[in-house]
Amino acid sequence: MAFDAIETPFGKTDKIVGGSATYVAYAASNFLKPIQQISIVGYDFPEEEMAELKRRGVQLEGVEIVPDKKSFFWSGRYHEDMNSRDTLVTDLNVLADFNPQVPESYQNAEFVMLGNLHPKTQLSVINQMKKRPALIAMDTMNFWMEVAMPDLEETLKHVDLLFVNDAEARQLTGQYSIVKAAKAILQMGPKFLIIKKGEHGALLFHGNDVFYAPALPLEDVFDPTGAGDTFAGGFMGHVAKSGDISFENMKRSIIVGSAMASFCVEKFGPTRLKEVSEGDINARIQQFKELVNFEIELV
Amino acid sequence: MAFDAIETPFGKTDKIVGGSATYVAYAASNFLKPIQQISIVGYDFPEEEMAELKRRGVQLEGVEIVPDKKSFFWSGRYHEDMNSRDTLVTDLNVLADFNPQVPESYQNAEFVMLGNLHPKTQLSVINQMKKRPALIAMDTMNFWMEVAMPDLEETLKHVDLLFVNDAEARQLTGQYSIVKAAKAILQMGPKFLIIKKGEHGALLFHGNDVFYAPALPLEDVFDPTGAGDTFAGGFMGHVAKSGDISFENMKRSIIVGSAMASFCVEKFGPTRLKEVSEGDINARIQQFKELVNFEIELV
Repeated sequence: MAFDAIETPFGKTDKIVGGSATYVAYAASNFLKPIQQISIVGYDFPEEEMAELKRRGVQLEGVEIVPDKKSFFWSGRYHEDMNSRDTLVTDLNVLADFNPQVPESYQNAEFVMLGNLHPKTQLSVINQMKKRPALIAMDTMNFWMEVAMPDLEETLKHVDLLFVNDAEARQLTGQYSIVKAAKAILQMGPKFLIIKKGEHGALLFHGNDVFYAPALPLEDVFDPTGAGDTFAGGFMGHVAKSGDISFENMKRSIIVGSAMASFCVEKFGPTRLKEVSEGDINARIQQFKELVNFEIELV
Repeated sequence: MAFDAIETPFGKTDKIVGGSATYVAYAASNFLKPIQQISIVGYDFPEEEMAELKRRGVQLEGVEIVPDKKSFFWSGRYHEDMNSRDTLVTDLNVLADFNPQVPESYQNAEFVMLGNLHPKTQLSVINQMKKRPALIAMDTMNFWMEVAMPDLEETLKHVDLLFVNDAEARQLTGQYSIVKAAKAILQMGPKFLIIKKGEHGALLFHGNDVFYAPALPLEDVFDPTGAGDTFAGGFMGHVAKSGDISFENMKRSIIVGSAMASFCVEKFGPTRLKEVSEGDINARIQQFKELVNFEIELV
């Protein structure tokens, strides 16, 4: 949970609420309650945002508030292609000393989503769970492959599902072919792998099975910040709601995640995620069905 | 119809048979006969290739054989990502004076595929057709946008369907957004637009409808030469076989084209296309169904 200041070809924002856990919680809260949040913020994180999250069924007992420090702050500028961006400012602030504690009341969590942080920090959360959750998913990024690869390899052994983008999958394995990279990652620990390809959709790998979810072709991507976290939040929310961790159900959940991500990019920050209704979500899922559905006889 | 010499990270070939029309014909001949070919070759184009094409139902009356010149020759080297390549040699040879003539026996063709050539040459073929075909499709490339844009714009007014890749769609319209680029192209003449995205699949646009066909995730792309032409050939072959130019049927035909392209890249040049059976094609189409198929209840 953090602040971002974002500049895109369409405009710019002052400091607005952001952060992986914020996006995941807003997306997942459409599908089930409670969401049990673990994060750290400073004295400056807005009361009204906390209240809004609570209203949506997000429990905040695991959110540490540091009274004399500021929240994490990131500022960046997207290029015209919206796939690359320059980081202008990264102020770690409270995140420099983040040592997440799993509250007793969270101990029965069945579905755990580990946001992108140091793999040791991610592993410490897993180790605090007294009962093995049904599904542990994690996100990571190229930075940890560069500075903490042995830790990342260790953490990967303890998770069920990994989210990475295509460049990260290649970097993690040294394989250029996405299919070969996926096979290598499935040997490293996770039984499920989701490779995110931005405007080109996402691939789900499990054993020898593969599923290709498209991204919705959009006229404009207004602000991609948080789209990956929103995708993960929608995915995990839908999996947790159904309580079904089969490959078939993960296919559905990826479509749900993709639908949520397609909303996220329509406005700055999590703005759009706070507006969408169940009807909006169902209409968007219907659009995905129409986008890829075909009937074919053998030739 | 031409010669290529190809170098990829997996190996290299001497001069082998290639050319847009060759790939289109091999792919389309799986679905219907006859294919009525128009092209130009030199004295060096192999007799046995002509015989093989004939055996597959490809009529060659429209193929001019120039007795004292060589066939078009291209040589290139693919980079590791297989998406970019360096051209090493381009010898136009017979292609420098190509002035395609539509034989009288081809006049009833209902489905016309115009390969990537100067847009004036493409238009001359359209103008020779005494009866308007049911569907005229064309391919083009960035080069013609740079050197013959007014001619390209004129030719586009006379075709029903355009094949381009994503970079070409952007260049043709000056729109970065693929959806905006597609809308602009549909204002330029074609009623249908297929945007090819290589390993990321293809998009079909028609009015406000859009369809997303995935590419099959492959362990290795051995040689991408001719994949786009094979895709077009499979697509046109399937459309022509069914005689149905509805959006629904074009969706099926894109899947068929994608299946054919996925074979093409498995070996050098058109080698693999000559081997595949009806059973192979149906098995591959089934893989595409499994790749994108999902069932979802509303959330």
